[in-house]
Amino acid sequence: MKRAFSKLAFPKYTKPEVLTEIPGPKSRQLLKEMDLLQETRTINFFMNTAKSQGTYAVDADGNVILDVFGHIASLPLGYNHPAMAEAATKPEWLPFLLQRHALGVQPPEEWPRELRETLMRVSPKGFSEVMTTCGCGSSANENAFKAAFIWKRKRERHSAEPTREELLTCMRNEAPGSPQLSILSFEKSFHGRMLGCLSATRSKPIHKVDIPAFPWPVCRFPRLSYPLEEHQRENREEEDRCLTHVEDIVHSHPIPVAGIIVEPIMAEGGDHAATPYFYQQLRRIAANNGIAFIVDEVQTGCGATGRFWAHDYWQLDNPPDIVTFAKKMQVSGFYLKGEFRPAQTYRIYNTWMGDPLRMLQLHVITNVIEGENLLRRVSDTGSFLKMELERISQEYPFLVANVRGKGTFLAFDTPDGETRNQLLFEMRQKGVQIGGCGENTVRLRPPLIFDQQDANILLETLQTVLRKFKNHSVQHKSVPIK
Amino acid sequence: MKRAFSKLAFPKYTKPEVLTEIPGPKSRQLLKEMDLLQETRTINFFMNTAKSQGTYAVDADGNVILDVFGHIASLPLGYNHPAMAEAATKPEWLPFLLQRHALGVQPPEEWPRELRETLMRVSPKGFSEVMTTCGCGSSANENAFKAAFIWKRKRERHSAEPTREELLTCMRNEAPGSPQLSILSFEKSFHGRMLGCLSATRSKPIHKVDIPAFPWPVCRFPRLSYPLEEHQRENREEEDRCLTHVEDIVHSHPIPVAGIIVEPIMAEGGDHAATPYFYQQLRRIAANNGIAFIVDEVQTGCGATGRFWAHDYWQLDNPPDIVTFAKKMQVSGFYLKGEFRPAQTYRIYNTWMGDPLRMLQLHVITNVIEGENLLRRVSDTGSFLKMELERISQEYPFLVANVRGKGTFLAFDTPDGETRNQLLFEMRQKGVQIGGCGENTVRLRPPLIFDQQDANILLETLQTVLRKFKNHSVQHKSVPIK
Repeated sequence: MKRAFSKLAFPKYTKPEVLTEIPGPKSRQLLKEMDLLQETRTINFFMNTAKSQGTYAVDADGNVILDVFGHIASLPLGYNHPAMAEAATKPEWLPFLLQRHALGVQPPEEWPRELRETLMRVSPKGFSEVMTTCGCGSSANENAFKAAFIWKRKRERHSAEPTREELLTCMRNEAPGSPQLSILSFEKSFHGRMLGCLSATRSKPIHKVDIPAFPWPVCRFPRLSYPLEEHQRENREEEDRCLTHVEDIVHSHPIPVAGIIVEPIMAEGGDHAATPYFYQQLRRIAANNGIAFIVDEVQTGCGATGRFWAHDYWQLDNPPDIVTFAKKMQVSGFYLKGEFRPAQTYRIYNTWMGDPLRMLQLHVITNVIEGENLLRRVSDTGSFLKMELERISQEYPFLVANVRGKGTFLAFDTPDGETRNQLLFEMRQKGVQIGGCGENTVRLRPPLIFDQQDANILLETLQTVLRKFKNHSVQHKSVPIK
Repeated sequence: MKRAFSKLAFPKYTKPEVLTEIPGPKSRQLLKEMDLLQETRTINFFMNTAKSQGTYAVDADGNVILDVFGHIASLPLGYNHPAMAEAATKPEWLPFLLQRHALGVQPPEEWPRELRETLMRVSPKGFSEVMTTCGCGSSANENAFKAAFIWKRKRERHSAEPTREELLTCMRNEAPGSPQLSILSFEKSFHGRMLGCLSATRSKPIHKVDIPAFPWPVCRFPRLSYPLEEHQRENREEEDRCLTHVEDIVHSHPIPVAGIIVEPIMAEGGDHAATPYFYQQLRRIAANNGIAFIVDEVQTGCGATGRFWAHDYWQLDNPPDIVTFAKKMQVSGFYLKGEFRPAQTYRIYNTWMGDPLRMLQLHVITNVIEGENLLRRVSDTGSFLKMELERISQEYPFLVANVRGKGTFLAFDTPDGETRNQLLFEMRQKGVQIGGCGENTVRLRPPLIFDQQDANILLETLQTVLRKFKNHSVQHKSVPIK
């Protein structure tokens, strides 16, 4: 089974080129066709994927758009990266394009090596085990919760073997077999949209309303004041207040807490983060109370903060119990400490149990991150970008505030949601695609290859739009941002 | 962006060739390596995927194995189907190998056409809308449940717009925003392993124990007597008893029922099905009580029963409200009636919202099913196989009973789980891979290309093993099967 290498000729873009409104007439026609079949109002434009390249998306109307949103932070190497194209046309990929394995029954012989040389090669410190799940971040978090519950019950009954009563009652969804256990999460957190992880998600009402939820506890998350170095004392006090709230819940919530889940940067909820001190204390509280400490790196993982895993910044003595991943990794799943591997088979299991094809993609991604020294690029570009955004924030204090983040995983606040949405719209019309999060926040999620030239285009476009806002209707409603 | 077509030379197998034990020494070495990283006890052998072809899997030790399990019913066209290989090496596929789109933000311009010409082309009767989800059957069912809950609450409050109180309370996982609503499912059903669908799954305790569950109702499922034509009256009485139980739950369960979910053939739970009458009545009960009727075709969909959708056999006047799919479809998701589309955006949503690459695979699958007339082949091979299995059942009445199913989606019972597992093991050692389900059931899940020659090899091998069982230790514990 052989496949010829092919010559791949990619276009090359160095700046946005806007020919039409965005979405243009072709995208609007496609929206109309698609809306017959499903919801389309969240779509910004349709892509000509083959013509896209690097940090530039080309849309159906031929507009060339600098992509600083990266498919909701899931695009690691930009479009049509030559290394990915070369790998994808190798004969070794073909078997994984033509069928998909049930990895828990008949995995390909390459699978143990790929687990070892791809996923374990980039493992966070302190882990020797990893599980892959079926594709999305939700499946990673749901299975991480299951591992935490199974581990917790094993501890509680001092045995890995469920009792006869537990085996009987779980079939009726009743205790003790279906136990009263909870996952503690934080206000504004986002952990996915399946019914388990949606019970931990606290981002926006429209994500949750009308869907039954487990009565799990929610805790305040520190809201820090910026710049951090000028607000150290009050930020520490804020973090201590939230930690006290965590301890209160752990000791008094009617449903025992099996796991605490936290994002290194609470992305969907508005790009909020605490200082390493907060996470170190959280880790300590979890360990002292027999609670699994789960770090959700679905959005922060895979390099965008300048380190491969964002929780690496915390410098924990005792690593997390579980770290979940998806998005830029293409593969979804979680790293776990050995004690979280269930004693019995078929407990954390499903048909596909992962995807060898996505693993091959991740293999290329990790090679490129290493070979092109992308973590360094992310750090350098991010430092420059953050500095310039802070300068812009000083120039437009009523429009841009609270610049924050690590690497190119950056965000800033605008006065309100309407202004933010208008800003995103105007940027898009000038050929720069960015995303929002929280109520009034702009989040930058470029691919890891985003460089200073890209950053300059982003910054120039932003200033053009801000100037227009300042000179027109937006100004009158601007207020200082807290 | 071009890629040369390549000459693809596939091996061709016509019978099993067993060189070693299965798993052989190479598979055992790989198991040892993999077990350092994760659970491996469910794995039968590792595959040499490139050498596999048609209905034959080749393992790491070079054994050629007739695959009648098909990666837990997820392999539609067998291994390395030439049509898939030809399509996968076309330049049109490459953009979808190099990046994955956030379909709710920047879908590829091909997406509306693929939805229309692939998914809608094979749509069950009565549907004009479809949603794709992130990959697995669980994600399809979880999102189907969400659609049912949102629809139910809209009806209950006579408005698509949630109230202010609902928006506030849902953020604390409290009613009325997080409503008390349930999904009714059946004993022995399997609907996936995320926390929502696991609450509807009732297959085996080990799938459920130690995991918190919603207190949703479970209903008896008819246990029919075979052969059906000889037990019509008692089977109808059994079905009516179960329907009465459904009505009782619908009218009296403390948590209102928003949806009833049912598999056309309850696969994981032991390949049990009812007659069309039962499902027609279920559909009527759902419609009369404002309950969504959800048909889970994750395992039965895509042709293995001889029709593209198994519920087509029911001849419903009023189609289901939602039909879910995954596995052989490669794409996961659900068809829904228009009234189940949420009025607001971002309610049934996630990062990827589906996968264009899997859709291209499904495009080939549906073309081949049509072009090679595979539904006819499945019916013909299935009829022959069922007839022969019934003959074997008469010859070995203490070892094989209750032959049942449609198309090649067939099953039979053995005296007990131990005998069943020994049978599967012995078959594997002779180069035929089959799966079990329920307590003591053997399930056949070959790819759709499985033909009479394959069936003959399966049948001959089965008879060899049964002869050995009859002559040896297995016989003494054999009992009539009920």
